This record gives sequence, structure tokens and C-alpha cells, in this order.
Amino acid sequence: MTAPAPFAEIWRGPFLESVHSGHAVICDATGQIVDAWGNPDLVVLPRSSSKMIQALPLVRSGAADAFGLTTRQLALACASHQGAQIHVDSVGDWLKGLGLGDDDFRCGTEESRDRAVMEAQIRAHEKPCRIHNNCSGKHAGFLTLTKHLEGGPDYTNPDHPVQRACLEAFEDVTQQTSPGFGIDGCSAPNYAATLHGVARAMAHFAAASDDSPEARLHQAMRLHPELVAGEGRACTELMKACDGKVALKTGAEGFFIAILPEKGLGIALKAACGTSRAAEAAIAALLVRLGVLDANHPATLKRINAPIKNWDGLVTGVLKPAAGLL
Amino acid sequence: MTAPAPFAEIWRGPFLESVHSGHAVICDATGQIVDAWGNPDLVVLPRSSSKMIQALPLVRSGAADAFGLTTRQLALACASHQGAQIHVDSVGDWLKGLGLGDDDFRCGTEESRDRAVMEAQIRAHEKPCRIHNNCSGKHAGFLTLTKHLEGGPDYTNPDHPVQRACLEAFEDVTQQTSPGFGIDGCSAPNYAATLHGVARAMAHFAAASDDSPEARLHQAMRLHPELVAGEGRACTELMKACDGKVALKTGAEGFFIAILPEKGLGIALKAACGTSRAAEAAIAALLVRLGVLDANHPATLKRINAPIKNWDGLVTGVLKPAAGLL
Repeated sequence: MTAPAPFAEIWRGPFLESVHSGHAVICDATGQIVDAWGNPDLVVLPRSSSKMIQALPLVRSGAADAFGLTTRQLALACASHQGAQIHVDSVGDWLKGLGLGDDDFRCGTEESRDRAVMEAQIRAHEKPCRIHNNCSGKHAGFLTLTKHLEGGPDYTNPDHPVQRACLEAFEDVTQQTSPGFGIDGCSAPNYAATLHGVARAMAHFAAASDDSPEARLHQAMRLHPELVAGEGRACTELMKACDGKVALKTGAEGFFIAILPEKGLGIALKAACGTSRAAEAAIAALLVRLGVLDANHPATLKRINAPIKNWDGLVTGVLKPAAGLL
Repeated sequence: MTAPAPFAEIWRGPFLESVHSGHAVICDATGQIVDAWGNPDLVVLPRSSSKMIQALPLVRSGAADAFGLTTRQLALACASHQGAQIHVDSVGDWLKGLGLGDDDFRCGTEESRDRAVMEAQIRAHEKPCRIHNNCSGKHAGFLTLTKHLEGGPDYTNPDHPVQRACLEAFEDVTQQTSPGFGIDGCSAPNYAATLHGVARAMAHFAAASDDSPEARLHQAMRLHPELVAGEGRACTELMKACDGKVALKTGAEGFFIAILPEKGLGIALKAACGTSRAAEAAIAALLVRLGVLDANHPATLKRINAPIKNWDGLVTGVLKPAAGLL
């Protein structure tokens, strides 16, 4: 097994304090590896980085059109949003349009990661709902497909038609038989593939023709970066910094993917230790490498060569991307 | 340079999702290495794991006795507390006793990590103060020593008598000339040593005679585990699980130390990637290995072989300690 490659270094004063390593693959539209670091054959769970694959049956089945879903709703279906008002309101409207309520979601409750919403809930002595869960947009998509397929309420069950359709789409775009699944944070199955397989899936999205379901999804993500994550978040800020040319999606445990339609390339990467700061540094470095992200953009400099500040605002160190990624 | 050794594995369903590695040293009272994993000569910043060393001048100088400090105050001087009411009240009384206020602290402000205090502040539209900073107990110690030494207000400056005394104590107990420092989260200098040097310092504390300043500090920590961290936290829960026989202290970026007076041993470890879950798993595994922690205690099982639950409370995976540590 190939060892993980250097991803990032955390320096404090003159000392190297922590190090991150990981695995990354850049794939072209033919499915061939253009560049790789670490082990392309590593079996991974892409977690929320696979949300556009999980949204594919929603479009392919005709459900998205039957329910008149907008590009905003398609972006939310691919999102790990932070439960800001814009996300809660948009998913709420969608849910209402389906004639459903919070109890119909099969994801758990999660406190909003948006400071204003979180504080408002605390002041009102309200408990977080399932709609605040970062995956509620994906689940609104699942519920829409459930209605379209006339499936039962238990739509996170691997045997449910929605999840069977997700597996079929996953194996189609990764061009692999999945070796199985883990249960995700939101209780849906998350299918495994090799890192190469996930990168190949992203290249497949990148190369898909303009009116294909794949293209409609990555276009929606690129049109609405603020819906895919939220203010201050890596996906949102880096998509804006790439001028809408790249669709980006993070996943739990240090996952990140990129879809680059203009170049017909896909990227999948995984920080071995599962930390977001390592995955964010690595994706920013690779986007700079490919010439689609300005190394000096503030959104870039927040993730690589990022000053680390302490409680009093003093700069105490820096996060440097590994030279091999740039 | 010796590569880091396996520390922990994160499994999700049947898949190994993330891996952690790091460096660890167990040292005896003569300063010799009893056991080591990874690189004992790694230069590290022990961060908050060195707080009992930073509190040593407070006792050695006679300041602690001159100001009549209690064991509770000595425990707080060594603490990274979570800003619960018990911590804020205790540090507040100490500060008041010195005739000082929140503005005299040189640490920045930090939101309380205690849910009740955090919510109360949000409801009252109050901003966090410096006293809520997890290091405010250490800083109350610094202010006490400043008074005793008649130093100026800028007590986090490396040239201030307080920090010069901290460096002297650090080099004394690590038995090394420090190669320099980084600025810590609370703006105080944090001196570097090899991991072996830090483990040697902890063994020095462990072997110190009963009425020595070193013993007074680790006794205070073991007497008041709830003051050293707080409810639910690793230091507090594992110290209780060890029946007060071991002093434990975490540090930022994946550091952990243990002082074992009955065995005359010290432990220092550092997760290479800087994550707390890896450091907590490793220290729990080593305490089990040394026979001072029950492998089946709930506090142990929260850190190793810990079920990972999702937003809906479903068990989705497990954190397993590396076999080599046990």
C-alpha cells in the first residue's frame, strides 16, 4: 500500500508543530489518472463529497422536472449547508411544497452552524430541528424522489428505491462495483469506492454535455455557491474565487472533490487523519496548480499560507501546503 | 528522522476511514526511556501540557505561600478549564483577591466551552471575557507571581521576570537547553524541547518528594480533576477513572502528558496531525498498558474503542487504538 503523501504543515514560530498527509487523484474525462499523490487505489467513503452523485437519480428519474425544481433546489440537494436562515428558509419552502414536515426527514437534528440562527434559537429556548441538519437539502431531494417513485417513508434504508437508485448512479459514475457502504452522519448509506473511482466520477461530471443531469447539478452548485455551504466556508469561498468555473464539495473526515468542466477534469482527495484544514489546504493547492485559482486570492490565503491567530488576534503560526501539491 | 507510529484508526462500517499516528515516550525517574513510539527526539511545543511547569516558579519562588494559594488555585494554575461557572467563579475570586480585574489578563477573550455559561451569555447579550479563556487560571498564577516579583503588567513578554522564571524551570525539569519558543493561544511563550525532554520533565514531577513544589502541583491536579478541565473532558474523566493516582494534562495540537507518582514515570505524546481524538486515544491506551486505567471504564471506552454516533444517535463506526500502544 502506498503511503499518504505530504499535504500540509502547521508551523508555530520557528517550529514545525503538526503535519498532515493524504491521498489525491486528478482524473481526466477518459477516466485516466493525470496526477496522483499517495494511493489512488485507497478504498474511501467520500461522505458528503458524493452528494451530487446522490442527487443524480433525482434528475435522471425525471423527478426534478416533475416537481419543477429550480437550480437553487438542485444546489441544496448537493449541499452541506450551515443552517443559516437562507438555507433553512429555502429547504423549508421545498419541504412545504412537498406537503411534508420536519418529522418526515430521516436525518437527525443538528444545531445550526450559523451564529445568528444558533443564537436566535438559544434566546428563544428552541431546540435545533432536522431542517438545521447540514444534509437537509439532500434529504429534501431524497423525499422528492421518494414521492416520484412512490416509495415508503424509510428512504435512508439501503433497500429503499431511493438508495438503490443512489447505488446504481454511484457505480455508474465511478465505473466500479462498490465494495459496500458505511452509514453517514445523516443516516443515509454512503457507498465506498477507490479514490480513483471517485475522481473518475468527478471527471465524468466535468465532461458531461451541457443539458445532462450531471451538468445541471454542477451548474447549480457553481451558480449558487452560498447555498452549497455558507458564509466563510471553504466550498463557498473557493467556488466564488474560481469565478464559478469549478464545482467544489467537502466531505466529513477530510474529503474534498472538484469538478472542472472547462478542463474536463475531476479531483478527489482525502486527508489521512480526517481533518478539514488538511483537505481544504490540499484542494486549494491543487486548484492553484491547475491554474483555476489565484494563489493570492483572500479565499486561497485563508486555506494555504494561512496565518494562524490566537485568542488575542496575534499571528502565532502559519499553515503551509506541501510543496509537492503546488 | 523516525516516522510517527500508529496511534488510532477510525472505522465506519467495514471500512477504515481515517488513521492517526504520532510520537510517544514513557520515561522513568532517572530520565531514561522505558518505552517509545515514533521519534523521541522530535522537537515539540508541549502547549498546555506544560502548564504545571509554567506554574513551578509560582511555588518555588514562595509566591504561592505568600499569597496563601489553596490546592484549588494550584490546580487552576495548571488547568485548561472550560469556562464553567465553577472555573469562572474560582478564578474571579482569585483575581479579586489580587486586587486586579479582567483587563489585567494578557490572554485574549474566549467563549466559554461550557454550554450553560455560553447560553447564559448569549441570552444576556454579553461578550466572553478574558476570564472565560481556558488559560485564565494559568494567567492568575502569572499575575500572582508578577505581584510577588514586583514585575510590570506585560507578564507574557519573554523578557518579563515571570517568563524568564518559566524558561528556567522548563530547562531545569526537561534537562535541556530549549531551542526557542512559539507564542501560545493565550499569548504566553511556549518553550520547545524534545518529546523525550518533556517526558523526562513529567517523570521528574512524578519522582519529586512529597512536599516539593512539583509534588504540590501534581497533587493539586489529582485532588481537583474537575478544575483542571471540566465535565466530560478527557483530563477530568481519565484522572477520576485512575482514582487520583495520575495527573493528566492535554495540550493543543494533539499533545498529552501523564505524571504517575506511584510508578515514578512520566509520559509525553504528540499526535502528528494535531488532533485531540488521536492524543486522547493514545494516552488512554498507554494508561491501560501501564495498568493504571481500567480498559473497561466508561471514561476509557469514550476514548478507545469508542462508538462513533451520528446526528440521529446511530452507531456508525468506532475509534480503535493502535495495537502497538496497548
